[in-house]
Order: sequence, then C-alpha cells, then structure tokens
Amino acid sequence: MTEQRRRFLKMLAASAAGVAAAGCAQTPDRGMAASRGSQGGGSGERYHWRLVTAWPPGLPGFGTTAVTLADTLREVSGGRLTLQVYAAGELVPAFEVFDAVSRGSVEMGHSAPAYWKGQAPTTQLFTGYPFGMLPAEFNAWMAYGGGMELWRECYEPYGLVPFPGGNTGAQMGGWFRREIRSVDDFSGLKIRMPGLGGDVLRRLGATVVNLPGGELFTALQSGLIDATEWASPYNDLPLGLYQAAPYYYFPGWHEPAGSIEIIINRKALEALPGELQKLIQTACTAVNHQMLSEFMARNVQALRVLVEEHGVQLRRFPEEVLKGLHKAANEVLDELGDANPLAGRILRSYREFQDGVAGWQAISEGSYLSARDS
Amino acid sequence: MTEQRRRFLKMLAASAAGVAAAGCAQTPDRGMAASRGSQGGGSGERYHWRLVTAWPPGLPGFGTTAVTLADTLREVSGGRLTLQVYAAGELVPAFEVFDAVSRGSVEMGHSAPAYWKGQAPTTQLFTGYPFGMLPAEFNAWMAYGGGMELWRECYEPYGLVPFPGGNTGAQMGGWFRREIRSVDDFSGLKIRMPGLGGDVLRRLGATVVNLPGGELFTALQSGLIDATEWASPYNDLPLGLYQAAPYYYFPGWHEPAGSIEIIINRKALEALPGELQKLIQTACTAVNHQMLSEFMARNVQALRVLVEEHGVQLRRFPEEVLKGLHKAANEVLDELGDANPLAGRILRSYREFQDGVAGWQAISEGSYLSARDS
Repeated sequence: MTEQRRRFLKMLAASAAGVAAAGCAQTPDRGMAASRGSQGGGSGERYHWRLVTAWPPGLPGFGTTAVTLADTLREVSGGRLTLQVYAAGELVPAFEVFDAVSRGSVEMGHSAPAYWKGQAPTTQLFTGYPFGMLPAEFNAWMAYGGGMELWRECYEPYGLVPFPGGNTGAQMGGWFRREIRSVDDFSGLKIRMPGLGGDVLRRLGATVVNLPGGELFTALQSGLIDATEWASPYNDLPLGLYQAAPYYYFPGWHEPAGSIEIIINRKALEALPGELQKLIQTACTAVNHQMLSEFMARNVQALRVLVEEHGVQLRRFPEEVLKGLHKAANEVLDELGDANPLAGRILRSYREFQDGVAGWQAISEGSYLSARDS
Repeated sequence: MTEQRRRFLKMLAASAAGVAAAGCAQTPDRGMAASRGSQGGGSGERYHWRLVTAWPPGLPGFGTTAVTLADTLREVSGGRLTLQVYAAGELVPAFEVFDAVSRGSVEMGHSAPAYWKGQAPTTQLFTGYPFGMLPAEFNAWMAYGGGMELWRECYEPYGLVPFPGGNTGAQMGGWFRREIRSVDDFSGLKIRMPGLGGDVLRRLGATVVNLPGGELFTALQSGLIDATEWASPYNDLPLGLYQAAPYYYFPGWHEPAGSIEIIINRKALEALPGELQKLIQTACTAVNHQMLSEFMARNVQALRVLVEEHGVQLRRFPEEVLKGLHKAANEVLDELGDANPLAGRILRSYREFQDGVAGWQAISEGSYLSARDS
C-alpha cells in the first residue's frame, strides 16, 4: 500500500466518523440551517453559505473543485460570499445532497446529476449520457444549444437552480475483476454504475447498484461487487481501485462527458444581490472548465503510475460489446423519452445537436487528430 | 450579396471612417489615456478602462467575446470595473494593440498572440502552433502544465500580463482560389497567414503576408492574395470569404487551438484592488471557454449554410501535403527554439505535454469517438 493511499484511507475513515478532513471545513457545525444567512447591512451585506458535496473529503479533482469554487467566490466577492465546504457524510450523506439543498437545509450542493434518478429522472440526461457528447460538444449544447434551459426545467419543481460545476472529461469504462469478452459477460455481473449507464447494463442482465465514491474500494475488495466505474486515472488512482480489480477498460461509453453540478436552493440564490448571483454563475463557468483541464493534465501522469507501477491491465471493450451497449443504450434512452415528456424534449434537443456537431467534429478535431498523430 | 453580408460590410465601412459600430462603444473618445483611471474613493472605488481589440466591429465570436467580457465584469463588479470596447481602427489599428497596451495608452487589449512576431516572437507559440494541441489539451497545459507561467514570461519585458481570452477551437485550413494537390502548389502562392503557420508556408515557397480580419475579403477579391486563413465557418461566413475563393480546406494544421488573448498593462492591473484582479482572472477563464462553446455550436450551422446555400467546395489537404507541412513545421519550431532560449524552454514544455496527452487522448476521446461514430 502506498503512502498516498494510506493517507487517503485515513481521511476516509476520519470522515466516516464525522471529523472534518483536510481541505474542507475545520469545525463543521452539525446543526442544519441555523448558521446560514446574511450579516451586516447595505450593499456590503455578507453571506455565509454551506456547500455539501457528494465526494470523499479532499478527493483530488472532485472535492478540490468544491474548495476552489469556495476560494474563488470568497476572493472575487471581497469576502461578501463565503462557502463552508463539507465532504460527503460530514453534514449529509453523499446521496442526500439533492434533498438537503431542495428543502433549504443548506444553500448549495456539489454532486452528479446521474445520482438523482429517484428524485428527478430527467436530470440523468445531463451526465452519463451513454454514447453521447464529449465535454466540448456538451458544453456547446448547454450554453448555445438550449441544454441549459432544459436542465433548469428539470430542477425547477424542486426549488433548485443548477450550474455546470466541473467535468472529468471522457471517463474510463471502469474496473473489472474479470475480463469482458462478449455482451453475455455482463449477465450476472454485479457492478456499481449510477444513472443511465446502469440501466443499460441492467438490460444486459447485470445486477446494478449505486454506491458513493468513498465505498467503492471496500465493496470491490469484499466481493460485494465484481466491477465498478468511477471516473478516470487521476481520480481512480487515490481510491485504490486497481488493488481490487486488475482490468481497466476503455472507452467510457457510459460517461463521455463526466459533467458534475452545482445545485443551489432557489430562495437562497434569489435572496442574493444581482452581482453576487452573476458572480456565482461566472465562477461556476470558470471552475467547470478548470476541472476539465485538471483531469486532462493529471490523467496522463496517473495512467502512467497505474500501468507502470501497479501493473494495471488496460483493455479496450471488444467492438461487438460496444455495439451491443450502443444498441441497448438507444433503447434505454427511447424508453425514458417515451415515458416522460420532458425527457422526450431533452432527448430531441440533445440528439439533434449531437448529430450536427458530430459532422463538424469529423472534419475538425477528428480530421486534425488523424493528420497530427498518424 | 446577402443582407447579412451587406450589413456587415456597412459596419466595416463605418468603422474605417471612425464611427463606432453596434455592440461596441457608442461615443469613442479619440484622445488616448486621458479618460482612464479611477473615480470615487475607498473600497468602492470605480475603474473605467479601455479595451482595444484587433477585430472588425461586432464580428461574431471575436468582437462579441470582448463585449461579453465587458458586460460580465461590469455586472460581477457591481459597476466598479467598466470596460469601453473599441473595434480595430476605432482607437488604434488592429496590429497596434500590443504597443498601445504595453505603453499604457490603454489598459487592456483583445488580440491574438500570433500577431506579435515583431515584438515578442515567443508568444507565437501560444496560438497557431502547427500540429500542436487541441483546445482541451492546450488549456490543460496552460493551467496545469506550466504553460501559463511561460506565457507570462514572454510578455513580462513589455509590461504586459496575459490571460486566455477565448478560443475558436480547431480551425479550418483556409480559403483557396485554386486547389492544393501537392506541396509544390504552395510555391509562389500569395497567402495571408500570421504566426508560425506563415513561416511554414514561406519555407515551402509561398509569399506570406499578414492582414487584419477586416481586410481579407478585399485582398482576396482583388487578387492581392490567392488564399487566406481566418478561423472557422461561424466566423468566416460573415467575412464573405466564400465569395472570393471557392475551396475551403481542412484540417487547420496551423491552428488546432485558435487561442486568443486578453493583455493588460501591468501597472494598470496592479493598481486594482486584489478582488478586482482576481475577478478579471475568473471572468477571462469563463469567457475563454464560452467562446469555444460558441464556435462549436455555431460552426455546425454556418458550415451548412456555406456548403448548402453558397456551394462552397470542402477539401481535405492530401495526406502527402499534410506530411510535408508537418515536416516543415518541425523545422520551423526547432529553429525558433534554437535561436531563442525562452522559445526553447516553451517548446520543451509544450512537446513533452503534448506527447503525454496524445497517449491519453488515444484511449480516451479518440477511442470513444471511433466507438460512438462507427
């Protein structure tokens, strides 16, 4: 076990016991709602918010992005808007972020849209869209193709306002204890995969569960699951997943743009002066892209460590498997669209945009990469 | 001539005559330096800056990004930092932006690093790096691979602080009046291409000039040049280049990440309170990525209009031509690195990062795209 891994597990344990970890709140207040709100008066009024996250404490890329957002907002607001950041389990468990922000117990959450299938199934389409758009394509759809407006509509009934809150980039396909040689190998496989990707595997006979990031290693090591997806090398490395499953598959067909979210309680947001609301939007746009850059840069080094130091076995899903997954994905998406009118509208918008952008990408980045790297 | 084109040419003419155009300053002050500076006192002090750009007035994507930055900064600062935006030629000509900001006549400029070969040749490496990194890769190098620090070093002797100020995405290869069938066809070709791409074509026998965007159509139509690069469909369409050259080539080997810049006079920047300095950095990060999304979304529609309505002939550079360009590009880069120690350090950092990231991209986005679009 590496020193890095040892330190990280220690942090996880500390967090589970309710002790705040490095990079997060030093003295978490266990009471809900009481300490939020404004102090002072006039245009210099100060706002102290709580930001609960779905991430293990200090997890590189995820937890650190929440801290970056808090630091940025404190600095650019001249201290008028401060966020106290809580790791998963410090104030609320990972999978209760949505409800806590929705009911106004806290003002802000940092999580993944794919987690809220039970609450707002349409929001799953905004992360982990199987065989969907890559980050640059997805960001373009969100900002200039109507995606953002549709996403706001998903959360509107819950009193939530969403903002893009980071992106892992195209993810890996996950960690497997045994090789995947045909679509039949998914039958009976116990795998952790949230959102629509999980529905696709369920259709192919897998037993699908969702677990927060902090529980993956133990679940995999204990045999509770046979496989799990999480993100990409930079983020998978500190979770130590390579120690429990030797096969690391690509491509990440289920999550080509691992977009995560900032969700804000609408009443809390609207109680802010206009310039602080705009500041949040601008800072979220900035950290959304910074996280993407961070993963792109750090994945390179982390992949090297995984392969060269830990002997991880890289595997590409066989072509026949990818075709089977693609077919099942289209069926899952069609069914969601048929069952839910808003999901149907989102799908039409997403697919039309993807069709157009795929044509442009073929003569743009695709054509360029083949010329550059041939 | 379309109505869109007619309106745009009218704007260009108005601008050349010194009249401010839509989306830019309403009442440009021709005097330099006098109106800048602060008003009021205390922590609520207000700053009114001038932002001179290298773009034709209101040019979609470029000129509008400068306006977006100005709008954002005004809103998020609660009016404490306002920017008056000037199109090329309104206050200073396109290719004098660098000098005007460097000597402090104006506080801020929006331009392309590739334009400053005469002033700071090393900065050319930060846009239009032939066969270099795509936007997501380049952004990762800038933020997490040491690129940003090296870029600041390029501008330091000139009293300038640079920030990423937008990205066109991977560009097209340019507009040609005749087809390119072999490397020999570049010999004697009169082409507009700034920066290192121009050096590559010069090495292959072309006569290379640089002209601001507002002069390309006339130069091409009059036969002063045989070919020109500008950006990509969204931005090339309103310049009307298709009317003067029927062949539209790809890929844009010379500018895979069309990154543009915000340059700020160091003394002006340092005179701002810390939170306004940080605000500029955050807003620049946000608009840098918004522009990339805008181009990705709008290129799709614009390419359709160019091909379906205007009969533009899309052509891929032949493989042999791309190989010849790649070889010449490496020679040009090596020579720049040998001649200039800072350029040498930038090249080593850039190439090492690109090598690593290309490996990651092969199993990440590359592998994914082949699975998705096959």
